[in-house]
Amino acid sequence: MLASPINPADVNQIQGVYPSKPDMNTLLGTTEAAAVGGNEGVGEVINVGSSVKGMQKGDWVIMKYTCMGTWRTHLSVDESQLHKIDDKSGLTPLQVGTVSVNPCTAYRMLLDFAKWDFRGDEWFIQNGANSGVGRAAIQLGKEWGFKSINVIRDRGDKAAEQKLKDELYDIGATKIITEEELQGKEIRDQIKDWTNGGREQIKVALNCVGGKPATAMAKYLSPGGTMVTYGAMSKQPLTLPASMLIFKDLAFAGFWVSRWSDKHPDLKKQTVDDILRLTRAGKFKDIPVEECSWGWKTDDEVLKKAVQGTLGGFRAGKGVFKFEDLEV
Amino acid sequence: MLASPINPADVNQIQGVYPSKPDMNTLLGTTEAAAVGGNEGVGEVINVGSSVKGMQKGDWVIMKYTCMGTWRTHLSVDESQLHKIDDKSGLTPLQVGTVSVNPCTAYRMLLDFAKWDFRGDEWFIQNGANSGVGRAAIQLGKEWGFKSINVIRDRGDKAAEQKLKDELYDIGATKIITEEELQGKEIRDQIKDWTNGGREQIKVALNCVGGKPATAMAKYLSPGGTMVTYGAMSKQPLTLPASMLIFKDLAFAGFWVSRWSDKHPDLKKQTVDDILRLTRAGKFKDIPVEECSWGWKTDDEVLKKAVQGTLGGFRAGKGVFKFEDLEV
Repeated sequence: MLASPINPADVNQIQGVYPSKPDMNTLLGTTEAAAVGGNEGVGEVINVGSSVKGMQKGDWVIMKYTCMGTWRTHLSVDESQLHKIDDKSGLTPLQVGTVSVNPCTAYRMLLDFAKWDFRGDEWFIQNGANSGVGRAAIQLGKEWGFKSINVIRDRGDKAAEQKLKDELYDIGATKIITEEELQGKEIRDQIKDWTNGGREQIKVALNCVGGKPATAMAKYLSPGGTMVTYGAMSKQPLTLPASMLIFKDLAFAGFWVSRWSDKHPDLKKQTVDDILRLTRAGKFKDIPVEECSWGWKTDDEVLKKAVQGTLGGFRAGKGVFKFEDLEV
Repeated sequence: MLASPINPADVNQIQGVYPSKPDMNTLLGTTEAAAVGGNEGVGEVINVGSSVKGMQKGDWVIMKYTCMGTWRTHLSVDESQLHKIDDKSGLTPLQVGTVSVNPCTAYRMLLDFAKWDFRGDEWFIQNGANSGVGRAAIQLGKEWGFKSINVIRDRGDKAAEQKLKDELYDIGATKIITEEELQGKEIRDQIKDWTNGGREQIKVALNCVGGKPATAMAKYLSPGGTMVTYGAMSKQPLTLPASMLIFKDLAFAGFWVSRWSDKHPDLKKQTVDDILRLTRAGKFKDIPVEECSWGWKTDDEVLKKAVQGTLGGFRAGKGVFKFEDLEV
């Protein structure tokens, strides 16, 4: 492997609270049945069997399915389980190793839950705008001409809040508001103003928070719009007045990238290729990461600590295992 | 007019708490701007203008749009605002006068929110199964081969509860349970048993209650299923754990027959014709009604009382104005 991110879902999977679970067995020589953690990552082919036609030494590959165990230095696997990166030129292992989960989630949620005209006068709204998915959505939206209202949590440190806003504006956010502002009274007129009196439609809401902030966000969807839930950081359920469903014709759906990936491997390859094309063109910026170098001599505790920090509060970046050049 | 039902939404409209409002004016000779109540009903053409080609004296007609004011003995209206009933043979004014709202709601909610195979091994689940929509859904489901789990409110009077169950079984309900049973623990195994271990999918849930009973019902939808909300009798919002949306891939939508009718007048005619065909074939039973006869001499108070009873609790039947033979 070259690089494998540590996604919150990977940790939930280890905790046993995630619906998708890897096969546990003793193939790795453990006395008790075990599985390797991690679901995303990029590897470099170091050897192929004689009947393998589609890949060769030096190729970069990503996992076609979930639960393949990417937190490891080396992996022996059938080529049918992998997507080859057809053109790795101009790309880093970090970019390719983090393309499958967050960017794919943002890409499909934006495209698949609304009918877009791509005329530059359409909007989406999202909370958790600072997350990997949120940043991907901002950049994809910019590319496709979707304007965005981005909700972030209020920070006690206003300078840090402003720095974050600057970062998000820099990658293409149209508007940024805090959760407190979203739930306040003045925002209604402001959003009306931004959307040309409501004539520009807010077609999709992306929700990874839940609870009251999610209900507040749904209120600003245009009639007929859809809220797509992909997380619940507040651990609160979504509460929906019936009038939103009946009279405003809002729909509420969910998106789970694992299910989508496993169900649509071909579409996954196409989505990944398109995102990598944008990355190569400089239209898709690297997400902030905290790298954890992994070599022959890395102490177990260092690796464990990198994983354990994943479910914390405000973090500086996504944890990523970066593998040292390890000859076998 | 021949017959005009009193729907709960008509009362909400008068209360001013319904989003769809009729035009208020003084055309009827009132000193203050006024509008006629009622949105559904059947009339008989008693005279046509010389340029009217599609209708003639004696034809039965229903309203093409909402807000036309059906609680009146006579109505002068352009033919473009009406659907003519092409074949009224074998039909009563009650059947035709109550086809536009409840049966159309059930028809579209069942058909439009799932991909059905029509092979007799598919299910839907609904609360408020005793309502006009609920009874229509049972009968349409039976016709289309959809089995149904029907949730009714618990009655203190168990004999009355059994009588209601008998009625619903009689029109084609597959299973009937109470709200209390739905929220109990034993029902899970029972539903699994009914649906052949879950192999038969519960594809749609119809919700007119909201609150906890609606969340409980959503739990029994098969993965990928949709809950359609068309009412909120409990006055409680819908509360959805994120896992339902993300991992179980459930979708939550709403249905408002007024919007649907006004948006799809041609489809409304087709839907009405199909339901009347089933009615004529004896496959669509009359709903229980409380008729209020309306003649020249009927006292205002009698009419008012009929409307005021609409939003009560357990009622014996839907209120319907039945117009006496009124020559002008």
